[in-house]
Amino acid sequence: MSLPLGFTASPAGVLKVGPGFSLAARPTNAAPGFSGKKHDGAAALAARAPVLAQLQEQLFAESRFGGQRSVLLVLQAMDTAGKGGIVGHVVGAVDPQGVKLKAFKAPTEEEKAHDFLWRVRPAAPEPGMFGVFDRSHYEDVLIHRVHGWAGEAELDRRYEAINGFEAELAAAGTTVVKVMLHLGPDEQLKRLGARLHDPTKFWKYSSGDLDERAFWPAYMDAYQKAFERTSTASAPWYVVPADKKWYARLAVQEILIETLGAMNLQWPAGNFDLQHERARLKDA
Amino acid sequence: MSLPLGFTASPAGVLKVGPGFSLAARPTNAAPGFSGKKHDGAAALAARAPVLAQLQEQLFAESRFGGQRSVLLVLQAMDTAGKGGIVGHVVGAVDPQGVKLKAFKAPTEEEKAHDFLWRVRPAAPEPGMFGVFDRSHYEDVLIHRVHGWAGEAELDRRYEAINGFEAELAAAGTTVVKVMLHLGPDEQLKRLGARLHDPTKFWKYSSGDLDERAFWPAYMDAYQKAFERTSTASAPWYVVPADKKWYARLAVQEILIETLGAMNLQWPAGNFDLQHERARLKDA
Repeated sequence: MSLPLGFTASPAGVLKVGPGFSLAARPTNAAPGFSGKKHDGAAALAARAPVLAQLQEQLFAESRFGGQRSVLLVLQAMDTAGKGGIVGHVVGAVDPQGVKLKAFKAPTEEEKAHDFLWRVRPAAPEPGMFGVFDRSHYEDVLIHRVHGWAGEAELDRRYEAINGFEAELAAAGTTVVKVMLHLGPDEQLKRLGARLHDPTKFWKYSSGDLDERAFWPAYMDAYQKAFERTSTASAPWYVVPADKKWYARLAVQEILIETLGAMNLQWPAGNFDLQHERARLKDA
Repeated sequence: MSLPLGFTASPAGVLKVGPGFSLAARPTNAAPGFSGKKHDGAAALAARAPVLAQLQEQLFAESRFGGQRSVLLVLQAMDTAGKGGIVGHVVGAVDPQGVKLKAFKAPTEEEKAHDFLWRVRPAAPEPGMFGVFDRSHYEDVLIHRVHGWAGEAELDRRYEAINGFEAELAAAGTTVVKVMLHLGPDEQLKRLGARLHDPTKFWKYSSGDLDERAFWPAYMDAYQKAFERTSTASAPWYVVPADKKWYARLAVQEILIETLGAMNLQWPAGNFDLQHERARLKDA
């Protein structure tokens, strides 16, 4: 596949978590694989949106004729890293009819009474759908590790359960793409400050954000461990530098385009006799 | 409220179903209330998208602080009338996180075993959400009337059940907006023909579309009766001429802007002490 304009390397290639991966060694303010500046990135995002939209439409169309395939984008990140922007600007550019979005909040009492995957399974995308998890089952090995809500043995069990669950999804036809938006703590501080100085953003601010911020190193450690245990061939992790919002959006878009592109999607032929239907239409 | 650029009258005002309404008297190829041409309409749609997006964000934000309000757009139409285009181009311009879209297909066996509203109730929008029904409980008084699947007494019961259900929604804080995209039969023929001559559209074509087309007058009669029985002050119907796709999109966008605009939405103040949080942030 030739590289899209402005790219010097495939973002999926350079951002994928592989053996020996170190989160600490990955800068948050870089734009790996892209040679342009912010305005080039914004232009590239707009130019490539129809490509992703067509791939999504083909995936959706395929399911109307028995296709079983689907895609699931899992988004994880520290607060303010830009998950919402990915949903709005990358996912938002495809047809909403083909998108199944699920935002995972703190679990309810009913959800807590079940195993951690209980609430996740029904949120998986149906055939043809482009599923998006805004946070996910990974919270159960991230915030739970950071705050000690689960011990090592339980965390071990969860990593295995996650791998089993994602392997099931893959076997059922779901291509799983996991993205961590990698934000720097200084950039987070700027963004929290912006929320406190813009009345149209007050509603996005929670004093709890600053509390969690104090656990930054523990979160990075929990992410590192999660990557080591759950980045698999069928459900890889991508770590996307997120200090530059424009780059994060562009990179996630390209990762999705590359992922869906590899599925060899086609326009379905339709399940009718073309000549016969054209003749019927003439008499209608 | 002053009229948006290009409008000579409020689309919500001129398209609303009122006493004495006659569907047969409403042209399908007009652009009521709009003085411009196609390119003006496309420009107006793009220009007004951020207005709708902000209103939706305010609705969503309000719910984060206890707000109970939501919006439900019900879309009904003959095949190819452009429901998908409304979803893609009007709804698609707001943040997907705040949208709850439900496409109602032919009911499953389980759904058929229940009353017709059984599958509809759980699809209603939660507080803060912008719900969209692509087809709806109205199929149970439209296709069911056309094909005689329900008799007069049962249809009577259903109109009343619908009014009761929508009154419940309104009482719970949901603003219901019902839109019929009013397509002409000649324009439908053109669009079906286009689907049969473009391989990227074959998947949208069903030979059943031509079968239903034969019942056109019966459908128009069923719509007329549904409007007479279910256009209420709290859940009004709007009949939007749909031969010009650009006009239908623009009109639905303006109806939504006017509807949400009347809700007097505001940015929430946030539930924290601003000065205190700013000070905490400085030390973070």
